Amino acid sequence: MTTDVEGVLTTVRERVTPSPEEQEALREAASELIDQAERALDDLSVEGEAFLVGSAARGTWIAGEQDIDLFVRFPRVLDREELEELGLEVGHAVLPDGREEWAEHPYVTGEYQGFDVDLVPCYDVDSAQDIESAVDRTPFHTAYLTERLTDDVALEVRLFKQFLQGVGIYGSNLKTQGFSGYLTELLVLEYGSAKEVVQAATDWHPPVVIDPEGHGNRSFDDPLVVIDPTDPSRNVAAVLSAENLARFQHHARQFFTDPSLDVFFPNESDSLTRAAVEERIRSRGTTPIALVFERPNRVDDELYPQLRKSLTGIRDALERRGFDVLRSASFARDRAVLLHELAVAERPRVERHMGPPVHVREHAEDFYTTYADSSAFGPFIEEDRYVVERERSFVRASEFLASDALYDVRLGPAIEERLRQEHSLLVGEEVATLASTFGKELADYFNPSP
Amino acid sequence: MTTDVEGVLTTVRERVTPSPEEQEALREAASELIDQAERALDDLSVEGEAFLVGSAARGTWIAGEQDIDLFVRFPRVLDREELEELGLEVGHAVLPDGREEWAEHPYVTGEYQGFDVDLVPCYDVDSAQDIESAVDRTPFHTAYLTERLTDDVALEVRLFKQFLQGVGIYGSNLKTQGFSGYLTELLVLEYGSAKEVVQAATDWHPPVVIDPEGHGNRSFDDPLVVIDPTDPSRNVAAVLSAENLARFQHHARQFFTDPSLDVFFPNESDSLTRAAVEERIRSRGTTPIALVFERPNRVDDELYPQLRKSLTGIRDALERRGFDVLRSASFARDRAVLLHELAVAERPRVERHMGPPVHVREHAEDFYTTYADSSAFGPFIEEDRYVVERERSFVRASEFLASDALYDVRLGPAIEERLRQEHSLLVGEEVATLASTFGKELADYFNPSP
Repeated sequence: MTTDVEGVLTTVRERVTPSPEEQEALREAASELIDQAERALDDLSVEGEAFLVGSAARGTWIAGEQDIDLFVRFPRVLDREELEELGLEVGHAVLPDGREEWAEHPYVTGEYQGFDVDLVPCYDVDSAQDIESAVDRTPFHTAYLTERLTDDVALEVRLFKQFLQGVGIYGSNLKTQGFSGYLTELLVLEYGSAKEVVQAATDWHPPVVIDPEGHGNRSFDDPLVVIDPTDPSRNVAAVLSAENLARFQHHARQFFTDPSLDVFFPNESDSLTRAAVEERIRSRGTTPIALVFERPNRVDDELYPQLRKSLTGIRDALERRGFDVLRSASFARDRAVLLHELAVAERPRVERHMGPPVHVREHAEDFYTTYADSSAFGPFIEEDRYVVERERSFVRASEFLASDALYDVRLGPAIEERLRQEHSLLVGEEVATLASTFGKELADYFNPSP
Repeated sequence: MTTDVEGVLTTVRERVTPSPEEQEALREAASELIDQAERALDDLSVEGEAFLVGSAARGTWIAGEQDIDLFVRFPRVLDREELEELGLEVGHAVLPDGREEWAEHPYVTGEYQGFDVDLVPCYDVDSAQDIESAVDRTPFHTAYLTERLTDDVALEVRLFKQFLQGVGIYGSNLKTQGFSGYLTELLVLEYGSAKEVVQAATDWHPPVVIDPEGHGNRSFDDPLVVIDPTDPSRNVAAVLSAENLARFQHHARQFFTDPSLDVFFPNESDSLTRAAVEERIRSRGTTPIALVFERPNRVDDELYPQLRKSLTGIRDALERRGFDVLRSASFARDRAVLLHELAVAERPRVERHMGPPVHVREHAEDFYTTYADSSAFGPFIEEDRYVVERERSFVRASEFLASDALYDVRLGPAIEERLRQEHSLLVGEEVATLASTFGKELADYFNPSP
C-alpha cells in the first residue's frame, strides 16, 4: 500500500513541477513586469515599489499555471482614492490591454507573454496588524514564507495544491470556499510534507486548531483554524467551509485506502443531455423547480454569496409553506439558476393553523372570534388549543414562486434586482431544458459525489 | 346579560328536575331491588348488604335518566373469585333477564320497571384507602355526599350535569374522558352553584387544584386536580382529558357571552350523505385513508383506549415516513374505523438519508462503504455529513398501510387481532362509502367545533 502511495506521489511530483524553461519564462516575464511598473511609478513621480507575491514569488506554482500576481506598494500618506487612481494608472501602463476588476480596491488584470497577470495596489504598512485592507497583508505572507520555503518544501506545496485542486477545494474565493495558497503553504510547513498533511487530515476532529507561531489571541468558530503567523487575530482558514473540510477528509482517507492518480487528476464529468435530465427527474419522482435569470454583473466573490443567500432564503420559505425540499443548487454562467428539487410540490387546499391554548383567555377569545364566522373549518379543540383548518395561500410551490411573495424572501440584492427585471420559472421536466447551458452542472447535481 | 343567564338557568332547572312521580317511581323500584338483593343474599347464606349508590342515591339524577346503580357489599374474608361468583348469582337472581358485563369485576346489568340497573359487587372495607378495587370506593363517596347534598345543591348538580352533557363531556368512562358524577357533585359543593362553577372555569389556568378537605398528599400531572375527600392520594378528575377541560372552558365563556339553552340541549348534527362526504374530500384536497374492521368484542372502556393507541401509533408511523397527517379520528359501531386525513399521501421514489459527520471516522467509513456501491445517489457531503438519496420503501401511504409493516406499528392488541383477521382499506373518495354507517361521525369530523 505504502509503495502505491509513494508511487503515485512520485508521479504527481513530476507532473506538477514546472520545467526549467517554464521557470525561466516566468522569472523573465515577472522581472520585465516589475521594471515596467517601476518605470510607470517614476513617470507618475510617485514613490513606490513593485514586487511579486503569491505562488510565483514563492516558487510554489503548479506546472502550467500561468499566474503572476504583482503588487505595487504605495506610501501611506496617499488617501484611498489617490491609491486607487494611481494603482489603476500603473496597471494600465504595464498592461495596456488589461481590464479593471474590483476586489477590495480596483485593480488591473491582463495578459503578458502568455501569463495571466493581476496588478494590485497596496499600502506600505509596518506590520500585518496595521493593514488598511486585506491586500496589504499579502507582502507579509510572502516575506514569512520566502524565509521558510526551501525547494523541497515548495515541491510538497505543489503536490498538496494538486490534491486540493483535484478534489475541487483549492481556492479561497467565495465561490469555492476552499484552501488558499497561503493556507496550503502553512499546512505543509506545519506537517512537513503533502503526504503528512493528508495523512493527518484522515483523523482530524474539527475544530482543528493550528498556531505555527503560538501567538493566537482569540478564538474562532470555524472547523479549521490556522492562526496567521503574521497576525495573531486572524484565521487563515476562515473561508474554508465545513463541507469542503469534510470533502478533504473523505478524499484523504480514500487516497490512503486506494491510492490512485484519479484524486489528483480527476476525469471531467460528462454533461447531461436534456433527455438524460428528463429521465433522472422521472426516475427520482421529484419536482424540480428553477428560477432562471440573467447573471448579475458582479464578480464571483460578490455573486456566489448572494446566490447562496437567495437559495437558503427560498428554501426556507418553501419549507415553511410545507413544500419539502430534497436538495438545492445554484449555477451561474451568462444566466444564473436557483434550483430546488421538491419532495412535496403540492399541498391540500386546507392547512392547519394552531391557535393559543384555550385557557389563555384574551388570546383565545380573539382567535375564536376571528375564525368563528370565517370560511375556515373550526375552530375546534385539540389537546388544550384551538385549531382551525383554513385555506392555504399557495397550493402549489410553483404558484408561490410565481407570485410577488417571492420578493418577501431573503434574497441577495443583486439577485432580487435581476429577478424583478426578468426571469423564467421552470417546473418538473421543463428543468431539463437547462441542459443546453448547464449540462455539466446538472451532471454534478444528478451524480452527486463527495 | 345577567338576566339572560338567570333566565336560561331557571328554564334548565325546571327541565332537569324529575317530577314527583318520577322520583317516587325510582324510590319504589330501588327499594324493591334492594329487598330482592338481600333476599338473594339470604338464600345464598352470605352476610352482605345491598344499597343504592350514584345519582339515584344522591338524588342528583337528571329528569328522564333511568339509571339505578345498586351495590352489594360482601365481607372481606371472601376471596376475589368467591366475590365475583356470589356477585353474579345475586345479580342474576335480581335481574333474571340481565347480562354480565365486566369493569374491574364482572357485574350484572339489566332492566327493571323501565330503569337501567347495574348490580355491582364490592368489598366491605373500613376506609376508601383500604379498597381492593375501584368500586369499593363508591360507598364512601355516597356517604360523603349524602351528608352534604341538600335539595338545593342537588338541583345545582343536575343543572351542571346538563351543561356538561350538552357539551358532550359528561362521563368518566374512557370513551368520553369527561367529568364523573362524583366530580360534578364535588365541584358544585366547592363553588356553591352550577353557575359559579361555570363562571370560575372561564378563568381557570390549568393545572387547577381543588382540595375540599385540604388533605392531598401527592401531586398530579393532570390539568384539573380535585383531591378525593375520601382519599388524599386520589385525583377525582384523573380521567378528564386536557381537550375536554378546554372544551368546558370554551363553552363556559360562550355561555356568559351569549347565554342560550343550546349549550344545554344542543341540536343533534345531521348525518352526512356519501355525496356530501365526497364533496368535502374534493374541496379540502386531502387524501383520507381509512382502515375498517370488525369492532373487537370489548367494552368501551377497553376498546376506546385501544383505538386511541392504534390511531396514534399509525399516525406517528405515517409521519415518520413523510406522510403528513392533517387530522385523525376513530369511530366504532359494529365496524370500527381508524381514519387519517393526509396532507401528503405520496412521496418521491428517492428519500434523503443522513449519515454521520465525516470526521467520526469509523461510522463515516462504514456508512460510505455501505452506500458507495449501492443504487443510492451519493454518498455526497452536506455540511459536515455524508448524505445519500436512497429508494424509499413506500411511495404511497396506502402502500404502507396495505403492507405487513402495519403490524410493526404500536396497535392496541384487540385492534391488531381484528386487523389481522380481516380489514378493508379505503383511500380518498372511497372513504365516503362509510357514510352509510358513520354518517353522524363523519358530520362531526367534517364540521368540527369545540
